[in-house]
Amino acid sequence: MNLGCLYGVGVGTGNPELITLKALRILQTVSVVAYPASEDGNSFARSIVAEFLQSNQIEVPIVLPFKLEKSAQAFYNKAAEELAVHLSGGKDVAVLCEGDPFFYGSFMYIFNRLSQRFTTEVIPGISSVMASAAMIGVPLTYRNDVFMVLSGILSEEVLREKLQVADAAVIIKLGRNFRKVKQVLQELGLVERAKYIEYATMENQRVLSINEVEVETVPYFSLIVIPSQLKELGVWS
Amino acid sequence: MNLGCLYGVGVGTGNPELITLKALRILQTVSVVAYPASEDGNSFARSIVAEFLQSNQIEVPIVLPFKLEKSAQAFYNKAAEELAVHLSGGKDVAVLCEGDPFFYGSFMYIFNRLSQRFTTEVIPGISSVMASAAMIGVPLTYRNDVFMVLSGILSEEVLREKLQVADAAVIIKLGRNFRKVKQVLQELGLVERAKYIEYATMENQRVLSINEVEVETVPYFSLIVIPSQLKELGVWS
Ligand SMILES: C[S@@+](CC[C@H](N)C(=O)[O-])C[C@H]1O[C@@H](n2cnc3c(N)ncnc32)[C@H](O)[C@@H]1O
Ligand SMILES: C[S@@+](CC[C@H](N)C(=O)[O-])C[C@H]1O[C@@H](n2cnc3c(N)ncnc32)[C@H](O)[C@@H]1O
Repeated sequence: MNLGCLYGVGVGTGNPELITLKALRILQTVSVVAYPASEDGNSFARSIVAEFLQSNQIEVPIVLPFKLEKSAQAFYNKAAEELAVHLSGGKDVAVLCEGDPFFYGSFMYIFNRLSQRFTTEVIPGISSVMASAAMIGVPLTYRNDVFMVLSGILSEEVLREKLQVADAAVIIKLGRNFRKVKQVLQELGLVERAKYIEYATMENQRVLSINEVEVETVPYFSLIVIPSQLKELGVWS
Repeated sequence: MNLGCLYGVGVGTGNPELITLKALRILQTVSVVAYPASEDGNSFARSIVAEFLQSNQIEVPIVLPFKLEKSAQAFYNKAAEELAVHLSGGKDVAVLCEGDPFFYGSFMYIFNRLSQRFTTEVIPGISSVMASAAMIGVPLTYRNDVFMVLSGILSEEVLREKLQVADAAVIIKLGRNFRKVKQVLQELGLVERAKYIEYATMENQRVLSINEVEVETVPYFSLIVIPSQLKELGVWS
């Protein structure tokens, strides 16, 4: 019997219209749809494409507990084995991935476990980096800018050091790290230039200046864009 | 009379199936479609979405000469004025942008000239960065990696210095810069880890190791991915 194909499907940042034609086609033809979900059953990735799913598709939530005792390894092993059963039975499986699957996504953990055993294809998705610049309405990078993506989890020292060698940057994973990140932006004189966005492309999207953000309630789905300052006019390049 | 709306529409990296549902909807409803084109009339951005364009749409090629005597400024001024006439007449205008419009795109030059006069909306697109990692089949960034995008036009010294502070990187704008970039990868011991891709997501796509690339004929549509080395297993984060 033929084995099924594993798809990592980027579903974009929240607005269902930001999925690609290819993602839509694959979503509507696979037998099995898997997605990261929380213990209470909620799945952000699933909610983005809910309207496109078919009632005869098998759904496999990949649940990670809120509080992880040790590593998440055991949970990914279990999820991968469950998907492997479907793939071995000849069923195609799409794993939904918020944004782009290979860009800071958890799909890697499934990919690393299954891609050697099953044909695997990744469908790139609109990343929160590009979506956020578009929603804020600010060009991100020009010409030969050095562009950087940093995680808010990094230490103040590391953030400060790295930001200094970039012409433009995006800082993801804010949440409780926001206060620390704001401190670094202040030290580097970047508070005016930077823009904060939460829930980009979703109905509850908000764009704020750094000083407007309520430090205590920064959600997981938020990031800071520090756009390029280069506005000089060049060739198509 | 109402003014028209200006759209910067990301059309992705080459495969027409990688445009978003939103880009498709806008492409099919605007009266005017503009796109960068070369003097001989070829337009890569237009070719991606040719099948979706309507015969009654007005097309506006934005032509930049191959050899620019001075700055491109005068050409963008002229193109912006041409689009402004349509917008002032109440026509919606979509400017096609290869990849994502705000990510090293030339759409900025139109945006900077018109966005204060006309309602402007940017539709994010699949960037060559994400598309290339997906096509190569290698996870780009994990967890709290520092990710960097560099231009091959930068000097050997700058490339070397910047690459050393990144966990994962993409180097765009190779072409005649390939030899220099390869030299830097060799010095930093990155030749094995790095992957080269040209014409990602197009029919003539090729993925090569750095040593396989014919240095003399590296095309414009090519880039190098240096994926993260972090494969340890973590939480969804
Ligand atoms: C684990 S990373 C996943 C990134 C995703 N794979 C992508 O391509 O955008 C999660 C982080 O992405 C950012 N993010 C994702 N979606 C977002 C959205 N809709 N609005 C703002 N930030 C978002 C947040 O910083 C969040 O902490
Ligand atoms: C001016 S930048 C435009 C980037 C584009 N806005 C994006 O989001 O991908 C042009 C560079 O992007 C890279 N590029 C764009 N499309 C590509 C493709 N299909 N395959 C490989 N590289 C590509 C090449 O390095 C090229 O020199």
